[in-house]
Amino acid sequence: MITAGIYGATGYTGVELVQLLHRHPHVRLGFATARSAAGQRLADVYPTVLDVPLISAEQVDLDGVDVVFCCLPHGTTIPTVQQALAAGVRVIDLSADFRLHSAAAYQRWYGSEHTAPQLLDEAVYGLPERYRARIRTARLVANPGCYPTSVILALGPLVQAGLLASPSVIVDSKSGISGAGRSVSLKTHFGERYDNFSAYNVGYSHRHIAEMEQETGCQITFAPHMLPVFRGILSTLYVSLQPATDPATMLAAYATYHDEPFVRVLPHGTLPELRHVVNTNLCVIGVQVVDVARGQYILVSVEDNLLKGASGQAVQNMNIMFGYDETTGLL
Amino acid sequence: MITAGIYGATGYTGVELVQLLHRHPHVRLGFATARSAAGQRLADVYPTVLDVPLISAEQVDLDGVDVVFCCLPHGTTIPTVQQALAAGVRVIDLSADFRLHSAAAYQRWYGSEHTAPQLLDEAVYGLPERYRARIRTARLVANPGCYPTSVILALGPLVQAGLLASPSVIVDSKSGISGAGRSVSLKTHFGERYDNFSAYNVGYSHRHIAEMEQETGCQITFAPHMLPVFRGILSTLYVSLQPATDPATMLAAYATYHDEPFVRVLPHGTLPELRHVVNTNLCVIGVQVVDVARGQYILVSVEDNLLKGASGQAVQNMNIMFGYDETTGLL
Amino acid sequence: MITAGIYGATGYTGVELVQLLHRHPHVRLGFATARSAAGQRLADVYPTVLDVPLISAEQVDLDGVDVVFCCLPHGTTIPTVQQALAAGVRVIDLSADFRLHSAAAYQRWYGSEHTAPQLLDEAVYGLPERYRARIRTARLVANPGCYPTSVILALGPLVQAGLLASPSVIVDSKSGISGAGRSVSLKTHFGERYDNFSAYNVGYSHRHIAEMEQETGCQITFAPHMLPVFRGILSTLYVSLQPATDPATMLAAYATYHDEPFVRVLPHGTLPELRHVVNTNLCVIGVQVVDVARGQYILVSVEDNLLKGASGQAVQNMNIMFGYDETTGLL
Amino acid sequence: MITAGIYGATGYTGVELVQLLHRHPHVRLGFATARSAAGQRLADVYPTVLDVPLISAEQVDLDGVDVVFCCLPHGTTIPTVQQALAAGVRVIDLSADFRLHSAAAYQRWYGSEHTAPQLLDEAVYGLPERYRARIRTARLVANPGCYPTSVILALGPLVQAGLLASPSVIVDSKSGISGAGRSVSLKTHFGERYDNFSAYNVGYSHRHIAEMEQETGCQITFAPHMLPVFRGILSTLYVSLQPATDPATMLAAYATYHDEPFVRVLPHGTLPELRHVVNTNLCVIGVQVVDVARGQYILVSVEDNLLKGASGQAVQNMNIMFGYDETTGLL
Repeated sequence: MITAGIYGATGYTGVELVQLLHRHPHVRLGFATARSAAGQRLADVYPTVLDVPLISAEQVDLDGVDVVFCCLPHGTTIPTVQQALAAGVRVIDLSADFRLHSAAAYQRWYGSEHTAPQLLDEAVYGLPERYRARIRTARLVANPGCYPTSVILALGPLVQAGLLASPSVIVDSKSGISGAGRSVSLKTHFGERYDNFSAYNVGYSHRHIAEMEQETGCQITFAPHMLPVFRGILSTLYVSLQPATDPATMLAAYATYHDEPFVRVLPHGTLPELRHVVNTNLCVIGVQVVDVARGQYILVSVEDNLLKGASGQAVQNMNIMFGYDETTGLL
Repeated sequence: MITAGIYGATGYTGVELVQLLHRHPHVRLGFATARSAAGQRLADVYPTVLDVPLISAEQVDLDGVDVVFCCLPHGTTIPTVQQALAAGVRVIDLSADFRLHSAAAYQRWYGSEHTAPQLLDEAVYGLPERYRARIRTARLVANPGCYPTSVILALGPLVQAGLLASPSVIVDSKSGISGAGRSVSLKTHFGERYDNFSAYNVGYSHRHIAEMEQETGCQITFAPHMLPVFRGILSTLYVSLQPATDPATMLAAYATYHDEPFVRVLPHGTLPELRHVVNTNLCVIGVQVVDVARGQYILVSVEDNLLKGASGQAVQNMNIMFGYDETTGLL
Repeated sequence: MITAGIYGATGYTGVELVQLLHRHPHVRLGFATARSAAGQRLADVYPTVLDVPLISAEQVDLDGVDVVFCCLPHGTTIPTVQQALAAGVRVIDLSADFRLHSAAAYQRWYGSEHTAPQLLDEAVYGLPERYRARIRTARLVANPGCYPTSVILALGPLVQAGLLASPSVIVDSKSGISGAGRSVSLKTHFGERYDNFSAYNVGYSHRHIAEMEQETGCQITFAPHMLPVFRGILSTLYVSLQPATDPATMLAAYATYHDEPFVRVLPHGTLPELRHVVNTNLCVIGVQVVDVARGQYILVSVEDNLLKGASGQAVQNMNIMFGYDETTGLL
Repeated sequence: MITAGIYGATGYTGVELVQLLHRHPHVRLGFATARSAAGQRLADVYPTVLDVPLISAEQVDLDGVDVVFCCLPHGTTIPTVQQALAAGVRVIDLSADFRLHSAAAYQRWYGSEHTAPQLLDEAVYGLPERYRARIRTARLVANPGCYPTSVILALGPLVQAGLLASPSVIVDSKSGISGAGRSVSLKTHFGERYDNFSAYNVGYSHRHIAEMEQETGCQITFAPHMLPVFRGILSTLYVSLQPATDPATMLAAYATYHDEPFVRVLPHGTLPELRHVVNTNLCVIGVQVVDVARGQYILVSVEDNLLKGASGQAVQNMNIMFGYDETTGLL
């Protein structure tokens, strides 16, 4: 039995974590923080969710805590992470603050200097399918972004197998609106999103591109879109493989996922739908050849952005870090 | 050709009016005001809508203006209305500030004293199907509420025909989320409303009850609900008619609507659906007997809350006030 | 460990049951039948669901089976139920065929003679909160309808406490579209339901009225509506209690639910929303006084129509019948 | 004043046409055909739409008819078109049967021989922005497909300006469900599409590719997706322009649309949303540079698939053919 704490429990990823940890047989929730809702109870904010007291970050006592999850906004987590590590507490950070290895890249993409570059070196990118061994012993795990998880899991094996003929990959992603968070703003007003669909931050401006490129070595052209649903991401990838790569050869590259509990690759020509993964920790990948001779393929990768794309993957990382079966609390 | 002005053009009813007036062959839009968006253009706020400059209320010049529409929040319109009337400009007020005839009732329902009670006496309740003659000459028209329009149009003929056995009427209404306005708040966040449905302000607390009771003489039990759609209201009414009232007798009471351009009554047993009226200025009413012997009937009344329930009805009133065909710009 | 079979596994209630039983630690799924999909696997029909072979009803071997769930269409289950009982297998029937105690009532509401009236006598109405003791030993449990569950749970305690001043109760219910089943028809076409809302079978024609009246002794006026969502029912009830019944007295009647694992009654004035219960086996009830003097109250009762309104309640009944903790597999 | 007839008036494009023609000041609807609904009235099928009698195709009398719209399924229109032309009636065909110029291409994409290849030569592809002069005098206009309209309007000016560095273009399109038609099937069941999103016919299999390639000369990789909304298409295009093409140069190519009533090109970096065009005949295009040096750009093109993507464009073509102002009945 371990004790976990959550910084930022009232956002969508935080409340998802509260529920996942509650169902987990080996975890006790030690504390949950909130800013404006500190002093209230979580059930005041989410009437359907268990009744957890919300404290301010200042009230946290790390004594006896084994692991903390940081669900704080990007750019605000470094002091919290440093404090936890100093107290000997392991950290799983769901922000983007430790996902890039290079302080220079961080500054370029996030627009400010990284104040703890040595932690960038130490942090392990929390994609179990790639870094399971390092996650096991990590003090600080940088939980991947939602879009990158769907993209890296689809691209990674093709890169490793040397199948890509060109590093240029086009990624057209569509996300449910929970990806925009729970803050009130006109862009998340029901009247703006209902019966609507739109692209945003297209081209070379979305920060998730940095993660995708770091982890795949590809050059990513990325256009995210906002779907009028709450949960889920579907990414459509357009790749150029070596000429004459047939579907069997391509699918063979994914054999590496054979024993993965949370990644499924479908037979050639069968494409996953969003609803197949909503409320699960799965990432499901489908492939469709466009032109064998030219090696043109389309990939479709789906996941629940709040689970495999965030809190579910965070719990998966925790299971690895503490020696539990990786699927505990996630099935 | 007349010149119209709009106070509060960036809310949902305001922008609907801008579009209706733009299509109206006899109206020129003289001005459109906004608070936070003053100085911008309407197309900055609604990229799809015509490009109208937005000024502050202080900048309004009423010279040459024939009519103004007030789409301001309840409780804030009285000075604006007084100013317009003083300048000889006729007013159609879409707020609730002049709908009740009694200052005492206003105070009871809205919680503050009405500072222009003599205007309460003068204002005409802008339901054309009941007050067409008075609207024609009115200086000040109080445009009905969205829920009351659907309810009064359904109940009125039954009351006038003396068919109600009991004044107690139960009204279970369901409205699209545009009824909650365009202000950002957690209750209109996509994540709170999508895939959800709920009642609110049930019982005796919703202010629209006052209008319904004033206009029908009935005692209304009212439960409004919020549908996960943008536009439209469907009200289900439960009434007790005189024992043994058969459907033909009941429907005969609605003959009064025979020449109404915007009210339709369906044959017994055929009930209207929300989509039948969305984007139209229609109110469509269906009736279903439950028990002839006991005179139990169910009525279903549907309308577009932003058109017949607000801005469309306001234009209908304007047409009457200025001698245009009542349907001009509304078909 | 018991072995269960499912007749009709490809409809919405059937596939929900497959998933619930899969998660249940004490149940082995012995068989699952389908008509048109017999010979296929459930994962062919629902790619996200576990891979269960589908056989035809004729291929069923009841040897070693402890309980069967019938998810067959109304009016078709009697031979299947008789066969199972003859083989010593206990039955939980999710159709309406055994819910009414009286063969005459069955004929009146369902339009055909009941061919096994002695089983009507024997069948236990499977609402655990009312009939737990009888369910424990029943051979045949008639699982309640979705609408009736939400209504009977809200009304029952008021009836038992003698608080109703009039037996007449108005029930305005709103259901997600899964209630209309998975058969293809224009009425469930996305284009007909999206962005729409409508009443259907209003008045005295919906068969669920018979169950509600049988179980509550009330006279129910019922108007069901179809919400543009997939899951969930919200019922709004209008009741007349004894004059001067205050909220505390009224809520005291619900103390009977104090230890119920799947019924929650909220404090006076707090009303449940649909999303509070979707994907749970809960029925949550809220109450709002309209007029204490006249005893007028509004109740709001919500549930997931596929769980507490169907398959979840069926598993709850199974747990009771076989001596498992009532919540096993349902939390 | 001209007289028009509609073959296939009960599908989504047919009923849209009925409404557009009804609003058109210079058109009288001569007849409307249906198959299964022949003998009924259109208001029986669509209660909200005007009441037009539906006849069978066999009952059509072409005497006095000036133009017919064919809204029949692909592969079934040839005899109807031949009969109309023989009777001296001009034809606007909304099916795909006359969109390709080459009988060989038709056979390759549609899998059957084209039985009227001489009409393929004669038919004019009904995209006014490209073929206005030829449409004016055409006997037979092949109304473009919904996806191709959004794609060709976005790509065409870049091709004409010689800006494309590579003929390979990736098109990721997302369409509302009305694109799948009104026929009942599991794939358009509310339960399958609500809260879901998926790709279909990706790669080189969708027949609309043939039109796009014919009209642009590009090599199109195409992945259509189905959005959980009713109307609208958003296409995201990834193009490689000549190295160092800056946004101003790129946008200059679109000057050709300057006087087009139904195409709008937004300033660089402003992208259109689906709701901007729903219920309009507009196609709105936005562009975003990814990398000037490499000439990488993303285009977003939106339209209402039932209007500019089908019936609205058909009326636009009719206006051109009969010398009316091109926007008549479409604003």
